[in-house]
Amino acid sequence: MTVPAGVSTTAALSLIDVLGAAKEASRALATLTANVKNAALEAIARELERGVDRVLAANELDLANGRENGLSVGLLDRLRLDEARIAGLARSVRDVIALPDPVGTVVRGSTLPNGVRLSQVRVPFGVVGAIYEARPNVTIDIAALALKSGNAAVLRGGSAAESTNRELVALIRAALESVGLPAAAAQTIDPFGRAGATELMRARGYVDVLIPRGSADLIQTVVRESTVPVIETGAGVVHIVLDASADESMAVEIVHNAKVQRPSVCNAVETVLVHRDAAARLLPPVLAALRASGVTVRGDERARAVDAGLEPATDDDFATEHMALKLSVAVVDDLDGALEHIRRFSTQHTESIITADMANAERFLAEVDSAVVMVNASTRFSDGGEFGFGAEVGISTQKLHARGPMGLPELTSTKWIVRGDGQVRG
Amino acid sequence: MTVPAGVSTTAALSLIDVLGAAKEASRALATLTANVKNAALEAIARELERGVDRVLAANELDLANGRENGLSVGLLDRLRLDEARIAGLARSVRDVIALPDPVGTVVRGSTLPNGVRLSQVRVPFGVVGAIYEARPNVTIDIAALALKSGNAAVLRGGSAAESTNRELVALIRAALESVGLPAAAAQTIDPFGRAGATELMRARGYVDVLIPRGSADLIQTVVRESTVPVIETGAGVVHIVLDASADESMAVEIVHNAKVQRPSVCNAVETVLVHRDAAARLLPPVLAALRASGVTVRGDERARAVDAGLEPATDDDFATEHMALKLSVAVVDDLDGALEHIRRFSTQHTESIITADMANAERFLAEVDSAVVMVNASTRFSDGGEFGFGAEVGISTQKLHARGPMGLPELTSTKWIVRGDGQVRG
Repeated sequence: MTVPAGVSTTAALSLIDVLGAAKEASRALATLTANVKNAALEAIARELERGVDRVLAANELDLANGRENGLSVGLLDRLRLDEARIAGLARSVRDVIALPDPVGTVVRGSTLPNGVRLSQVRVPFGVVGAIYEARPNVTIDIAALALKSGNAAVLRGGSAAESTNRELVALIRAALESVGLPAAAAQTIDPFGRAGATELMRARGYVDVLIPRGSADLIQTVVRESTVPVIETGAGVVHIVLDASADESMAVEIVHNAKVQRPSVCNAVETVLVHRDAAARLLPPVLAALRASGVTVRGDERARAVDAGLEPATDDDFATEHMALKLSVAVVDDLDGALEHIRRFSTQHTESIITADMANAERFLAEVDSAVVMVNASTRFSDGGEFGFGAEVGISTQKLHARGPMGLPELTSTKWIVRGDGQVRG
Repeated sequence: MTVPAGVSTTAALSLIDVLGAAKEASRALATLTANVKNAALEAIARELERGVDRVLAANELDLANGRENGLSVGLLDRLRLDEARIAGLARSVRDVIALPDPVGTVVRGSTLPNGVRLSQVRVPFGVVGAIYEARPNVTIDIAALALKSGNAAVLRGGSAAESTNRELVALIRAALESVGLPAAAAQTIDPFGRAGATELMRARGYVDVLIPRGSADLIQTVVRESTVPVIETGAGVVHIVLDASADESMAVEIVHNAKVQRPSVCNAVETVLVHRDAAARLLPPVLAALRASGVTVRGDERARAVDAGLEPATDDDFATEHMALKLSVAVVDDLDGALEHIRRFSTQHTESIITADMANAERFLAEVDSAVVMVNASTRFSDGGEFGFGAEVGISTQKLHARGPMGLPELTSTKWIVRGDGQVRG
């Protein structure tokens, strides 16, 4: 295999070896039956259960380092594993066993007039790369999803989780070998540090797709630096529009659910836009419910005219994914005003309208250019698990290949199979 | 709209205006019915017919410049339009009218246990960018396909065709306006020169997908430089494997058809790999047929042992897409040897095996990692038109989003539509 342009052979000779081994292993994985892949997943779950002590010891090292380096309480919590969390990881691996294998699915097919038979079938990408932060659960998630979809995985986790990830990848590799599969199908490139991450982004020809998971900064860096095709799983500056005709209790419950049920996730609402004709009717009960749950609400000038207790909201507020019990409110003249605000501030993840007006509902669904658009439902439904995809690969905010919640099929490509009996082109 | 990172506002302020106008126009296009889009396509066909003289005059200017600048005969031929070719362009636009509109197709859907209804529908990308060389027909092709799929098009053609493209885009814009659509839905950025092409590749947020069409150099530059998602339409170093059991007349006819029927295209065969047990039986008639049609054949050492008239083939020969009446031959030990050669030299476009052995056929189909894999058929069938897709967007050699011949659906993304009646997440 030739070294792709942009990959430095001197600085990263051994990284190239790792990637080459992953590519080689991916060929073995591509043609496995679901039964074999499920046996490997079960072995991973069992190794996790058997290796609890080793994983916890490694995690304790990372946590001690993290405390020394002044990691925030939130980051330390994301980094922390305990017996219950490891049991949860094993359970999530077994959930992947239950999912249908996408590989081999016939997407479409036909027989041409000359008798040539075509079928387009799902095949693994080959090597899936992932770059993410210090959340050890992502190591297991991505490795399990990649394996079930027939892909080798090359993982680059946050350096703060390096010891934990090393143990987890060692467990996965032992599990693969225990069922006769190549250990090289799961690789960590954490030992290569930042330079390794950079090389991974340039490793077109070795890595077929790269999935960044984490902060907006991390994702934007990967999008900007990669020559490998990227699936962007983006931030959610998510909007709910309260139309003039919105039912009051629906508005109150959906906004409250979309912010409070789990504020730290990307499908939680960040901004509520309310029609001026409904502002006096809807804002008081909506705000009361939010405040009762400890949500800090800011508002534009017109919202503050309805509720003087609102702190003023700036453009920065409207552009921010808070991932916290914070929310901004603005009053708009009409549906066009709401659409314009969304165009300006949305990250094109998920938006919902609460309305009884069918024409406005249809316009909203047609004109809002986001991965998921909703009528009269909580934005929290924008989720692979809720959509019935099983485990979550992520939520894509780009338009190429996958958009919105991604399931296992989104970790595959396709291939055309052509069967003839001697046909030539006239 | 904010200016995306990497787009220089000082150097390219007016390019940003062009891209912003395209984005704005794309919103109007996204919700058009097929009837309106077809009327616009018919208007384009008619404007082409009406504007023959203007287009030919502009083309004459480009041809004169090209001759002055020493353009090769082949390039001048690709650049040249005449009345018949313009009539062909109008016909190809009308062919697009006949294709089904992919927008609004429901890809999948379901009703969740809580009554929330999901459907995933095809939507336009928004703005499709194309970077290509001095082939004016691409201007019309891409604009027509983009329009039918509800996308605005931003076109960057080769500078050698600048006058012709200016006229063609002016025709398209007049046609759009004649049916009440925004002219900004079709844009050329040729006046911005090379800097404009560079800015286009960085215009993430304005341009949703970028399609390079042309030489391997051009495509690799776009892949390397773009932050906008790219669909790589790659070169074809295409292989045909003659297995030990291959039928002689099938081998002769398919290899001949795959090289000679149209040597200048990406699905023409470049290398024939013959099983050692069949080399003495198959090579003489295969080579005789090729030579009778003027094909220059090179061979590896073992092929030259069968046919001393072969020039020696180097690794460079095996790695080259000749697009000419040239072909290389190698003898392999077995199917594994063929698969290894293909792994080393293929561009993962199209490969075919000629065999009567079912196990080898199935292994080939499963293990060759190319966009199109064939048994007992000419590689020339690897084509959108032959596959029944109508007009050709290109043949993707990447694995993300689209792989192999692309039709109109490949110029769309999807969007999830969620309809509830007040559901919240528990």
